[in-house]
Amino acid sequence: MQNKTPLTIVKIGGNILDDAQALQNFLQDFSMLEGLKIMVHGGGKTATKTAENLGLKPLFSNGRRITNKAMLEVAVMTYAGLINQSVTAALQAMQCNAIGCSGAGGNLIAAIKRKVETIDFGFVGDISTVNAIAIEQLLHIGLVPVFSAITHDGHGQLLNTNADTIAAALAIALSGNFKVRLVYCFEKNGVLQNAEDNNSYISELDYTTYENLKNNGQIHSGMLPKLDNCFHALQQGVAAISIGNPEILKSGNAVYTKIIHQPA
Amino acid sequence: MQNKTPLTIVKIGGNILDDAQALQNFLQDFSMLEGLKIMVHGGGKTATKTAENLGLKPLFSNGRRITNKAMLEVAVMTYAGLINQSVTAALQAMQCNAIGCSGAGGNLIAAIKRKVETIDFGFVGDISTVNAIAIEQLLHIGLVPVFSAITHDGHGQLLNTNADTIAAALAIALSGNFKVRLVYCFEKNGVLQNAEDNNSYISELDYTTYENLKNNGQIHSGMLPKLDNCFHALQQGVAAISIGNPEILKSGNAVYTKIIHQPA
Repeated sequence: MQNKTPLTIVKIGGNILDDAQALQNFLQDFSMLEGLKIMVHGGGKTATKTAENLGLKPLFSNGRRITNKAMLEVAVMTYAGLINQSVTAALQAMQCNAIGCSGAGGNLIAAIKRKVETIDFGFVGDISTVNAIAIEQLLHIGLVPVFSAITHDGHGQLLNTNADTIAAALAIALSGNFKVRLVYCFEKNGVLQNAEDNNSYISELDYTTYENLKNNGQIHSGMLPKLDNCFHALQQGVAAISIGNPEILKSGNAVYTKIIHQPA
Repeated sequence: MQNKTPLTIVKIGGNILDDAQALQNFLQDFSMLEGLKIMVHGGGKTATKTAENLGLKPLFSNGRRITNKAMLEVAVMTYAGLINQSVTAALQAMQCNAIGCSGAGGNLIAAIKRKVETIDFGFVGDISTVNAIAIEQLLHIGLVPVFSAITHDGHGQLLNTNADTIAAALAIALSGNFKVRLVYCFEKNGVLQNAEDNNSYISELDYTTYENLKNNGQIHSGMLPKLDNCFHALQQGVAAISIGNPEILKSGNAVYTKIIHQPA
C-alpha cells in the first residue's frame, strides 16, 4: 500500500452547492489539495427548483427521488449541465484543471436500471462497473475529473445515480492502483450523536458503534445510506474515509468523523 | 501534409438533433467513421423550448441569440447537459467511445465575452484559444470528444458560443498536427443556389463564387456565418471542408458542397 500514489476523492453535498459563498470556499480548498484528486457532486435542490419552474412535481420515496422521464431530463440538465459546468469553470479559474465527467462519457461508470420491487424508482441506476483504467488515463494527463451523479446503462439510457454511492464506487475501483482518501463534505461537522447539535460529532466511528447508534435512532434518514457506503468502501480496501464540513480539506483540521475498522 | 494523421471533425445541425430518427441515423454513421474524430453540436430549438417551458422569452438579433443570465443557464443545461449527455450515451451504445466535452473542461476552448458595440449579446463568447495539446491527449487515449457549444472565459464565466465557429476553430487548431476533414452536417444537400430547391446544391464553392452568390442574395441568413467559418478554416490550413446532409459521412456519397480554394 505504501507505494501506491495518493488520490483524494471528495464528494460535495447539496447544501454546500446551494450556498454560493460556501461553494466558493469549498472549491478554493479543493483546488489547493495537492496530488491527484476527483470531485463528485449531486445537486438535489437545484434539480427540485428547476423541476418546479417547469411545472413538474418532484416525487420522493424514503428520501430517494423517483425519477420519471421528465425528472431524468431535469437531473441531466442540472447535474451534468448547469452544476457540473459551473463548478468546472470555477475550478479552472482557480488553476485547477477540472474536466466535467459523467458515467456516460468514456463509459466511466456503467449502471443497471434498478429493478422494480416494491417501489419503481424510474430511471435510477445502480452501479455495475467503474472504468478505472480510463479514469486513471484522465488523471495521468493532468485532469481533475468532476463527476455529476449521472450514469448510463451502455445501451443509450442515462440514469440518475446517488452521488454518495458514486464516490464510494470510484474510491473502491481506484483503490487497486491508488491509496485513496475518500472525503464526504457536507454542512455538518461529521456524524452527529444528536442531529441538532453540531458539536456532538463522533471522532471515530466503527461499524458496531454505527449499528448501535442506528438501532437506537440517533443516526437516521440520509445518514444511513451515506454511512452504508462508507463502511462498504472501508471493507473494500479504501485507505481512509472521513465525513465532515469543508474545513476537513484543510490540513490540521481535527473536526470530522473518521470511519474506522472495528478495534481488535 | 501526407504524414499527418487524419482527423474528422463533424458539426451536427440543430434540425437533425431535433429529429429523433435523423439523429439516430446520423450517430450511427458517425460511429462508423474510421480513424480519429470529434463531434460538435449546438441545439438551438431544444434550448428555446426549455426556455419557453420556464417562462423565459428567447431574444434574437440578426438570427443570433441574445444570452442573458437566465438564457445562459438554459443553454448550459440543454447543450452541455441534456443534448451532450444523450448523444454521448447513444454513441457509447454504438461502441463509439464518446466523451462529453465543453470549452470549460480541461480548458479546451477559452473565449472572451463579446464586447458591446451596437448590440449587447450578453454571455456570448468569441473563441480566443483552443487547447490543441489537451484535445490530442483525449484523442490519443481513445476518446471521441463530443463538444457542446459552451465555452468559458478562464475566470469562471461560462459563455454561449456558436457551434459552427467552434467546429472551425477546432479544425484550425488541430490542423497543426492532423490532416483535418471538417464536415458541416445539416438537413440540406449542401449550399443551395435556390434555398427552396434541395437539388440546387453547389458541388464546389470557391470564395469568389460565394461573394457573388451573397451579393445577389442567393445565399443569405444563417448560411453566411457558416460559410465565413468555412472559408476562414480553408485559408488557415484545414485540409478538406464540406457541407451537406448526414449522407455525407458515407463514403461514395457525391451529394454535398465542397469548399475549395480559388481556381488558379
